[in-house]
Amino acid sequence: MRIEDLDTPAVLIDVDVMERNLARAASYARQHGLRLRPHIKTHKIPALARRQLELGACGITCAKTTEALAMMSCDPPEVLIAYPVVGAAKIARLVELARRTEVTVSLDSVDVAAPIAAAARAAGVEIGVLAEMDAGLRRVGVPPGEPLLDLVLGLRKLDGLRWRGIAFYPGHIRSLDEAGQAQLGSLREALWSTVGLLASRGLKPEIVSGGSTPLLWESHTLPELNEIRPGTYIFNDRNTVLSGACRREDCAATILVTVVSTAPDRIIVDGGSKTFSSDRLASSSEATFGEVLGHPQLRFHKMNEEHGFIALDGAPAPFRPGDRLRIVPNHICVAMNLHERAWGVRNGEVVAEWRVEARGRLQ
Amino acid sequence: MRIEDLDTPAVLIDVDVMERNLARAASYARQHGLRLRPHIKTHKIPALARRQLELGACGITCAKTTEALAMMSCDPPEVLIAYPVVGAAKIARLVELARRTEVTVSLDSVDVAAPIAAAARAAGVEIGVLAEMDAGLRRVGVPPGEPLLDLVLGLRKLDGLRWRGIAFYPGHIRSLDEAGQAQLGSLREALWSTVGLLASRGLKPEIVSGGSTPLLWESHTLPELNEIRPGTYIFNDRNTVLSGACRREDCAATILVTVVSTAPDRIIVDGGSKTFSSDRLASSSEATFGEVLGHPQLRFHKMNEEHGFIALDGAPAPFRPGDRLRIVPNHICVAMNLHERAWGVRNGEVVAEWRVEARGRLQ
Repeated sequence: MRIEDLDTPAVLIDVDVMERNLARAASYARQHGLRLRPHIKTHKIPALARRQLELGACGITCAKTTEALAMMSCDPPEVLIAYPVVGAAKIARLVELARRTEVTVSLDSVDVAAPIAAAARAAGVEIGVLAEMDAGLRRVGVPPGEPLLDLVLGLRKLDGLRWRGIAFYPGHIRSLDEAGQAQLGSLREALWSTVGLLASRGLKPEIVSGGSTPLLWESHTLPELNEIRPGTYIFNDRNTVLSGACRREDCAATILVTVVSTAPDRIIVDGGSKTFSSDRLASSSEATFGEVLGHPQLRFHKMNEEHGFIALDGAPAPFRPGDRLRIVPNHICVAMNLHERAWGVRNGEVVAEWRVEARGRLQ
Repeated sequence: MRIEDLDTPAVLIDVDVMERNLARAASYARQHGLRLRPHIKTHKIPALARRQLELGACGITCAKTTEALAMMSCDPPEVLIAYPVVGAAKIARLVELARRTEVTVSLDSVDVAAPIAAAARAAGVEIGVLAEMDAGLRRVGVPPGEPLLDLVLGLRKLDGLRWRGIAFYPGHIRSLDEAGQAQLGSLREALWSTVGLLASRGLKPEIVSGGSTPLLWESHTLPELNEIRPGTYIFNDRNTVLSGACRREDCAATILVTVVSTAPDRIIVDGGSKTFSSDRLASSSEATFGEVLGHPQLRFHKMNEEHGFIALDGAPAPFRPGDRLRIVPNHICVAMNLHERAWGVRNGEVVAEWRVEARGRLQ
């Protein structure tokens, strides 16, 4: 089957670009002695997680317990739930996971940890725990230093949990411009001083887990870091290009759409916010929703649910209904989650069909 | 089962509010002699479409052919695909639909219509067609007046298609402020003159189909209009409230989330852009992603994929991990499409579980 034979909209993955992205990160991690534990939220496809494991990943990272269960067919030696697991149903799934593989959870309070510890004890399983440090995003995590030490001391008192180290997510650093460099400097200091403080109490973290795709190639400059959890790097997207962490030609994922209407000033394609998501660019005020491959003059500036509005901006427009475009999305992780399947392509041929198994697993 | 027993995030539908919304629109349509053909993109649940039909809807509207096929268990007497159907796979599904019920498609070019007509002839089915007029959104549709007449004349030449009338979508009118009133005035004029022009050529549209939820209650003021296709009205959302087309207490859908982390200035909940979508408000510069029921002081101002950031803004914060909040989303149509199921609730009890059958049907 060729790309022309696919119905649209469709997520296409250039398998050669994907393999190059995977190999580069695997090689970087090996070179710097970092454990690579990719976040599967980007693809949600067990076969691709399997490929990451084959290339040396130590395990996988997931946000939700339902997502992790849907990924178990990749047979991961370790699963990190990088999310505070709160509520009886979720804790029951965490225990179920712990019966099937080695499971660790990152969280930021003893209140959240205590019921997990109780469930682990009751089930006779051991669950690893990482103390989540706020690296500056002000999302989850306690501040570096004393608050992190207090959290670790609290976690270590809970039978059923095994304290394994520290986790953080530097999602506030979107690129390595001057502001980003300053933020990175603060993060290095926070890591250094916090691990030092733990050491002064005789506490040595087995795992210091961090990293994001924008900061992937800076991971070796973060003191004490020994595990990275990038997600987007497998495909990359416009946000990754803007962050400086990849080149345009490293974007493996495009969305194939069909022109359904034309007018002198615009074309309309059969993908909108239910196909691309309505995510704007993360670090640009430019209000566009994708880059049309091969047509840099086209401006994808607006979406309704099932319509993409592409302005011609005066460019000659030889488009007709039925023409197809490939669009690099702003943020592939949210786009992929809207699709039932994705297609691996190479030189115009469709070489793989993958079901997005963990799509919509929100609980 | 009670709401407390549901895992989160979960879409809750207050069935009494939903029934009131459905009854009000049905009564309005009846009173003004308008055919009501609800767009099912909002809920994507056959049982709810069935309820709309029981209350007098003449059929259903869908955007995509896969979506329509997934809805067929509601047994609709008519299906309108309010979208240009382009491409062999989609046309084959349109023909399949036409074998099962009365099918009409709205489109804006003879180029798009011709292969549909050919497929209908080859299959021995008849497919209705509406000429799409651009009401001002500059999405699909030809301009009112002569271009619309030309389109109708072209469509009438195609064997296999039955020309039934005109369709338009006034999505550019978000509220009835001064600008909205002026746009509504232009739309009235466009309808009046276009239908007059058709009449001068002996062409009488059986169907003049328009309407959106923000303009629902103005439908009777649009000349010649005899069919309306609102979608959101079944649930309503923050956008509908802002448009003036409903009151806050008419919002039937909320998303139940759990607090997973707390800090002095914020709480983090277990729903982000993969739960709510990243849609901002349609007609406000306010960058918030939902209204927290019962806590008007809380500001839901930021999302990552699985995290909702809620600022306390100095308000006292008696929240702990495990607490639950119900949040009215900005745009329920895109939020619903992210969920596998929705729950009907009444007085704290869960009274229905619905699978979102047509979720993710993008083709």
